[in-house]
Amino acid sequence: MSDLPASVRISEEGPREGFQFEKGFIPTARKIELIDALAKTGLDHIQIVSFVNPKLVPGMADADDVVAGMTPQPGVACAALWLNEKGFERALQHDNRLALVGSIQLCTSEKFLKRNQNRTMEQQLAAQHTIVEMYKKNGVPVERGSLMAAFGCNFEGDIPVARVVSLVGQMLDVASAHGVTLKYVSLADTMAWATPLSIKRVVGALRDRWPDLDIALHLHDTRGMAIANAYAGLEMGVRRFDASVAGLGGCPFAGHKGAAGNVCTEDLVFMCHEMGIETGIDLDALIECARLAEDVVGHSLPGAVMKGGTLDQYRA
Amino acid sequence: MSDLPASVRISEEGPREGFQFEKGFIPTARKIELIDALAKTGLDHIQIVSFVNPKLVPGMADADDVVAGMTPQPGVACAALWLNEKGFERALQHDNRLALVGSIQLCTSEKFLKRNQNRTMEQQLAAQHTIVEMYKKNGVPVERGSLMAAFGCNFEGDIPVARVVSLVGQMLDVASAHGVTLKYVSLADTMAWATPLSIKRVVGALRDRWPDLDIALHLHDTRGMAIANAYAGLEMGVRRFDASVAGLGGCPFAGHKGAAGNVCTEDLVFMCHEMGIETGIDLDALIECARLAEDVVGHSLPGAVMKGGTLDQYRA
Repeated sequence: MSDLPASVRISEEGPREGFQFEKGFIPTARKIELIDALAKTGLDHIQIVSFVNPKLVPGMADADDVVAGMTPQPGVACAALWLNEKGFERALQHDNRLALVGSIQLCTSEKFLKRNQNRTMEQQLAAQHTIVEMYKKNGVPVERGSLMAAFGCNFEGDIPVARVVSLVGQMLDVASAHGVTLKYVSLADTMAWATPLSIKRVVGALRDRWPDLDIALHLHDTRGMAIANAYAGLEMGVRRFDASVAGLGGCPFAGHKGAAGNVCTEDLVFMCHEMGIETGIDLDALIECARLAEDVVGHSLPGAVMKGGTLDQYRA
Repeated sequence: MSDLPASVRISEEGPREGFQFEKGFIPTARKIELIDALAKTGLDHIQIVSFVNPKLVPGMADADDVVAGMTPQPGVACAALWLNEKGFERALQHDNRLALVGSIQLCTSEKFLKRNQNRTMEQQLAAQHTIVEMYKKNGVPVERGSLMAAFGCNFEGDIPVARVVSLVGQMLDVASAHGVTLKYVSLADTMAWATPLSIKRVVGALRDRWPDLDIALHLHDTRGMAIANAYAGLEMGVRRFDASVAGLGGCPFAGHKGAAGNVCTEDLVFMCHEMGIETGIDLDALIECARLAEDVVGHSLPGAVMKGGTLDQYRA
């Protein structure tokens, strides 16, 4: 009936997604409070900040202070996002507190690349060689391939599955050319085009080509499909998911038109646990974090299980 | 990979679910406005009211006026819910405007039955014989078997699949004893216990026993699983779904603790259309109805596609 995995690894992206998107001012101490609470739930990977231009992303102006102020927990990797060399250099300053991981990043859509980074597909590919060398020079492991807009693009429309397969091949070639082995390839549904069927088609095509390739899914919920897409991924044996506590990140109730956060972490954990899939996460503690997230951002967030409750109370 | 159907039939339950649960006063004319708009979207079945005790459900006190005031559309069946003979008699007064359909109703949970109707499982089964005769006497077709709490119960916990199979068998026996043939059996996830895996297990067990039985799913979204559960149903070939425009019905943002509406109609229609499954519904018109629903109830509702938008604009 399905190929559900026995366990999954969930990377929490709520702090980075949320603090980046929220329009209201959030005190640094409150951001740290949420991160510290998340680090005690059993989550072993939390993306806590992005090192980006504070003029463009005011919510990340205090990224250095957030990293310096949070309390590291044994076994919990705190990660950061950066978009260019300057951001990477800022992240490097915190390499005693952050788990820095390099990635090879490609995008399915030339129109999107042009718009965001003023690069052609070829220029983006060429840049990855330089970036991998930069990571190697700085002793940062290159573990991830990351494909933006893997399921569709607002600027280019539907994306042929064959293009996704070709681009993943290019990533693996870049890694190979520099003597590194990617631990996994992350498919990002950046603009929320995926359906469960397209998840199955794309993941299936990659599985056919590289049966042992570990695939991760980064699923935005802008059209309400994220949890169904995650389920489709689970049925294809996907064992890595990004997720966002309470559904933080571009809250649809706060006027961030067209943008919603990642699949809600506690809803995903609930689904996994109810289907017998281990996550290593304490769901009750995570739900408390989701409620804290609502308090920190000052408005309701989309997560459902934190409102509807778990089922264990009825089984006891 | 899956057994997705070519087309599905969606029964809209938003007006009944919504007007029943909303706590604020909604003028009758505004209820009619929403129903009339829904009737022009291509939906061919809309449950518009319930005939229940107005002291217990004040939002349905104007049910007779709603039925009398709405504008019937050719090819659109407007339905009503009732819970006892008195409600049925009120519905009968409107049989020129309403499409009255009788159902055989059982429940997986004796504790739930005891609590709600003060009946044992045996008493509930016996009552169905009387009810079917009542429908026959009044010329109302008995088309549906309806099983409450098919996936779990807040009062009884997990429900064994074998019990569901047994109860569906009892429904079919009741129908057969009175010479009627059920068109389909509806499995209600009344208290939102289902996961995609339990949907597959239960539907699969029924398919094994009765390969040609048409199954419908009534999926509440209290724990955020409804769209994933609907997808699991589609993969099992389920072609009938109840749904609720904008996710109306026990809005989690309005303090209705533990209760959310059915799977959001326009999100379900979006998923179906994107996966090549026909619904006969004009999605853009339905999204306009979802926005109207928010205006009518006076607060935000959970539907995602009405906020995130469809994909057609990007393909044009």
